[in-house]
Amino acid sequence: MTGNRWAGHIAVVGLGPVVEHGERPAKSVTGEEFEVAATVFREGHDAVSAAVVLTDPGGFEHQTAMTRVNAGLDAWSATVSADQPGLWSYRVQGWSDPYGTWHHDAVIKVGAGVDVALMLEEGARVLERAVAEVPRTKEQITALANAIVGLRDTAQPPESRLGAGVSAEVRAELAVRPLREYVTSSPEYRLLVERERALYGAWYELFPRSEGAHLDESTGRWRSGTFATAARRLDAVAAMGFDVVYLTPIHPIGVVNRKGRNNSLRAEPSDPGSPYAIGSSEGGHDAIHPDLGTFEDFDSFVGHARQLGLEIALDLALNCAPDHPWVTAHPDWFTTRADGSIAYAENPPKKYQDIYPLNFDNDPEGLYAEIRRIVRVWLDRGVTIFRVDNPHTKPLWLWERLIADVATEQPGTIWLAEAFTRPPMMHALAKVGFQQSYTYYAWRHTRDELQQYCAELAGSAAAYMRPNFWPTTHDILTPFMQHGGQEVWKMRAALAATLSPSYGIYAGYELMERAGRPGAEEQLDNEKYEYKDRRWAERDAAGTTLAPYLTTINEIRRAHPALHRLRNLRFHQADDENVMVFSKSRRLYDRDDVIVVVANLDPQHTRDTWIHLVMPDLGLDWHDRFVAHELITGQHWNWTQHNFVRVGPATEPVHIIHVGPEGITSPR
Amino acid sequence: MTGNRWAGHIAVVGLGPVVEHGERPAKSVTGEEFEVAATVFREGHDAVSAAVVLTDPGGFEHQTAMTRVNAGLDAWSATVSADQPGLWSYRVQGWSDPYGTWHHDAVIKVGAGVDVALMLEEGARVLERAVAEVPRTKEQITALANAIVGLRDTAQPPESRLGAGVSAEVRAELAVRPLREYVTSSPEYRLLVERERALYGAWYELFPRSEGAHLDESTGRWRSGTFATAARRLDAVAAMGFDVVYLTPIHPIGVVNRKGRNNSLRAEPSDPGSPYAIGSSEGGHDAIHPDLGTFEDFDSFVGHARQLGLEIALDLALNCAPDHPWVTAHPDWFTTRADGSIAYAENPPKKYQDIYPLNFDNDPEGLYAEIRRIVRVWLDRGVTIFRVDNPHTKPLWLWERLIADVATEQPGTIWLAEAFTRPPMMHALAKVGFQQSYTYYAWRHTRDELQQYCAELAGSAAAYMRPNFWPTTHDILTPFMQHGGQEVWKMRAALAATLSPSYGIYAGYELMERAGRPGAEEQLDNEKYEYKDRRWAERDAAGTTLAPYLTTINEIRRAHPALHRLRNLRFHQADDENVMVFSKSRRLYDRDDVIVVVANLDPQHTRDTWIHLVMPDLGLDWHDRFVAHELITGQHWNWTQHNFVRVGPATEPVHIIHVGPEGITSPR
Repeated sequence: MTGNRWAGHIAVVGLGPVVEHGERPAKSVTGEEFEVAATVFREGHDAVSAAVVLTDPGGFEHQTAMTRVNAGLDAWSATVSADQPGLWSYRVQGWSDPYGTWHHDAVIKVGAGVDVALMLEEGARVLERAVAEVPRTKEQITALANAIVGLRDTAQPPESRLGAGVSAEVRAELAVRPLREYVTSSPEYRLLVERERALYGAWYELFPRSEGAHLDESTGRWRSGTFATAARRLDAVAAMGFDVVYLTPIHPIGVVNRKGRNNSLRAEPSDPGSPYAIGSSEGGHDAIHPDLGTFEDFDSFVGHARQLGLEIALDLALNCAPDHPWVTAHPDWFTTRADGSIAYAENPPKKYQDIYPLNFDNDPEGLYAEIRRIVRVWLDRGVTIFRVDNPHTKPLWLWERLIADVATEQPGTIWLAEAFTRPPMMHALAKVGFQQSYTYYAWRHTRDELQQYCAELAGSAAAYMRPNFWPTTHDILTPFMQHGGQEVWKMRAALAATLSPSYGIYAGYELMERAGRPGAEEQLDNEKYEYKDRRWAERDAAGTTLAPYLTTINEIRRAHPALHRLRNLRFHQADDENVMVFSKSRRLYDRDDVIVVVANLDPQHTRDTWIHLVMPDLGLDWHDRFVAHELITGQHWNWTQHNFVRVGPATEPVHIIHVGPEGITSPR
Repeated sequence: MTGNRWAGHIAVVGLGPVVEHGERPAKSVTGEEFEVAATVFREGHDAVSAAVVLTDPGGFEHQTAMTRVNAGLDAWSATVSADQPGLWSYRVQGWSDPYGTWHHDAVIKVGAGVDVALMLEEGARVLERAVAEVPRTKEQITALANAIVGLRDTAQPPESRLGAGVSAEVRAELAVRPLREYVTSSPEYRLLVERERALYGAWYELFPRSEGAHLDESTGRWRSGTFATAARRLDAVAAMGFDVVYLTPIHPIGVVNRKGRNNSLRAEPSDPGSPYAIGSSEGGHDAIHPDLGTFEDFDSFVGHARQLGLEIALDLALNCAPDHPWVTAHPDWFTTRADGSIAYAENPPKKYQDIYPLNFDNDPEGLYAEIRRIVRVWLDRGVTIFRVDNPHTKPLWLWERLIADVATEQPGTIWLAEAFTRPPMMHALAKVGFQQSYTYYAWRHTRDELQQYCAELAGSAAAYMRPNFWPTTHDILTPFMQHGGQEVWKMRAALAATLSPSYGIYAGYELMERAGRPGAEEQLDNEKYEYKDRRWAERDAAGTTLAPYLTTINEIRRAHPALHRLRNLRFHQADDENVMVFSKSRRLYDRDDVIVVVANLDPQHTRDTWIHLVMPDLGLDWHDRFVAHELITGQHWNWTQHNFVRVGPATEPVHIIHVGPEGITSPR
């Protein structure tokens, strides 16, 4: 890692992104634009220049010229992207630029009549070196050769001779193929490039057993949904425009100490139990709950999803019911207490006696091999994504090893960390390999909270952590969602879907299921402990669901590549602190896609306010006018830097606006 | 550098100070307290703990327990220091703390009557491990053994048994000699420890030829001062309390293109020339200007300085007059232009034809060997410090190599970088080895400017850069100093001397020589181009000099170890934005030295204002009262958190206040 960055003439320091001093790779997805920054300078007054060199997995180098973005701080920058997945690397090269030095001095000195003949001759010699030392085509050489002749043409006045040496053609040629002295490289840093779904996707969470479940009125008992009945629901999920279906655990559920409805300690015989209390005499993490069907049924379910363009994310919850097969076969994979009993989960003085946590210290190799085996079982059945339950309660080495291991066999596998814990662990899980992370989004409501948090996620953290924004989950229903009404359910979904390239909703979001368990930030009648028959057909027919709204949001997402990215998030001003304005823009195939979102964060009141756009962030000049196409309602407005907007109950809580290049008019 | 920081159970990340990702050492001086920070955490809910391990140059390890300073961010910190110069290293160890885990759970569960017998037995087993696994004295073992018996004493009520396991004695023993599991180390980072003068010292700059120079009225010509006459001035410099005398170059001065008074292009025959245009037929950088005397005279001068406790800093200005011996002996050490001439210094269109800059590219080894040789000449004559002129115009590799090279032969040599350039080069010079740096202090006047700049210097930069604050130099006389009057000369010296552990003044500061060359931030009649006979005796007799004030300031500095440090700088509030308040405190041999400085930054007006002290920064409680001893005037005031002060022309511009522990009274 110790380069010759000072030993060479050129200091190339302060690189970004660098994760954990280079011990962890920086990350991007295929085609994701990101900025590489560096501080590049040399002693004295000579000109320097710099470039980013990306090396692809095949060893081929891709060079991108950098721009000096702050001369007073010697700060250089370039936007780059990698076009295939794999382990890339990058470095920054700085060099001394003899043509740049001469150009700077010659313009001043010839202009002032100082050393004129000498400066012109020295220019000719610099260009001679540029011809001799850098490979060029015949035409490129001719351009420089003409300049050399021009510089030495004593029949011409000095200004003309200088002009030959500093013509636009010569400068362009030297910019693309510079004459470089004392080229100095930064250390080489790793860049892990992953497939685009690692950054961008719309997720839908469901409990397979609920899809098709129904209460048999005659017996008063529930019939479980199956993979066959749940497969029918996939069509609706795909029709709403989701990309990923996330299934809560599908394994046999423990009988010992099974929890009843609403997390009660005693289960009724008819209670299905929590799918997170995994394992019974019917099998463990490699088995399917018999109520759901067989492996063949699962295969059909996965096949149907694939036909619909949906990926399957499976829950990986590494804990066991007391009757999990591992408990008898491998008691050393658990913790034995002083009285010989196996330790159940607890958060003193609370006890969770339906779950035994794994102990990774007694037989790490044996337990690892078993986890690797069960993961392979599901990968081999078409699962491409794991949503990992509480990864922060297992050792980091497990994830680091497992994710790397799987990547060699099934590259493209995506791991989502369901950790809601202190920031250092959240960040560490991303750094050791998780492609995606649940976030604090559900608890960020005010503009300050959202902007500050998103600035972190889209800023420095974006080099290694990718957020997945969930307004609710089966475990999280904040008071804000419980009491906010339809406005808040639309607003929180639309914000999640536009602030973050990956977002997800939990089945029932369409129905705004908002009854909370008293005193908890959680659903009443949590689906973890019972079946839910949501009677989708009836609700859809009644026309009271948010499905059409979510469909629109997902259509807008798909149509607008700017929303597929995170690091392009920029906030703008609004006079009313309840109104948040942000934009994302992206250039793709020479076309700019620019989206502006205006959201009312106050679900109770319609807000009228002025908003103030940072026009250059939209690719516009400060005095441009443009047509704002509102994509949810289809309205059009004539906008400038300053606009008056109305958002909230009287209209829509969120405007998603497309800034079409066709709509821009410049006053000049 | 890639540790097993994730592979172990414990994540130990986010260490500070780490310079350039660990490629450069962090720095301190002997006995300098500094904070080591780290983020330390593990999966799940078990307790962790952490320590800093400093390894001294002999390989001996010094361990300091860290404190969790922010539980929500898993942030740990410890204040450490190194007690001898040399190359140390440091790392942070994190570990799982079984006793801490048990202690946390047992207090809750026994208190709630949950698992009581089991928890008490598990406590006894943890302490059995603590006895078996960690070396302890007999008494230490007895303390734990008693606790084990107490935990198992079923005759006692559970609260008593728990009490035996969590007694203050047991906790103290486990804090000092913890039972540690899964000990995980951060990477090891280098720490370069240098002698204290690298951080702390008062400097006095003089031109030796001026000290004792006088105009011979009969001939109208000047007689140069000599080492012999200059040596007499050393007594006064020492009496004022300075630690270092910095001499501008003492070598022969070029005759070709010599500059005259006020930088004029034509020198009169009697003009002495600039000592920075080094070299003539009389010799170069290894020679002494014949007017100053011989090497023996220099030795006497150095010897006298040493008797007075003064170190000698010599100017190292690596540029040459056209008649420097190197120009004919080694033309390849300079740049030859297209017309065959040797390039002089220029900043187009300005020319500096009395100076040829060195070219380090043609014969780097030859030139390096010569520079190394001349440096050795002066080190061998008793010079211990080099003040390097314009190091930012020479390659970084030169300084990196030279400073490291000299350190092996003459450890303790100090190098001060006189660079006034863009921040990245200023920082890079410190990182490649300069022990001290000139700063932007002379151009920071407002409270915001000073506080922001000092927060950077005393904060992140303090791990590798040490400031030396100069209110003026022979090249810098800002308009603020030209027009501010006596108030500003006192204020800027006192601020420099208290904000920064190293500060310096240029001869004549006592006399407030403030006539500026029109249109320049520079002295009129710059001493670089002429002799100055300052008639010290007359001025001192007249009693109008700042010498007594500077003496007081230096006495206060020497008496107060808090002022010998940089990283302990803390700013406080004042209602008037022209009043700046800061403190420094330091614990030494179990005694706290606490200094508060209150400065009026406005030299024109006396300011009356409330100031508000952050009492914990003074080692006090918020409601404490204390006696403030003003050290310049000898006044005493009764102070609390909020105090009314008067500073400025009507009194003193700067108060330096000692917070004596004897003066503290607490209302409780």
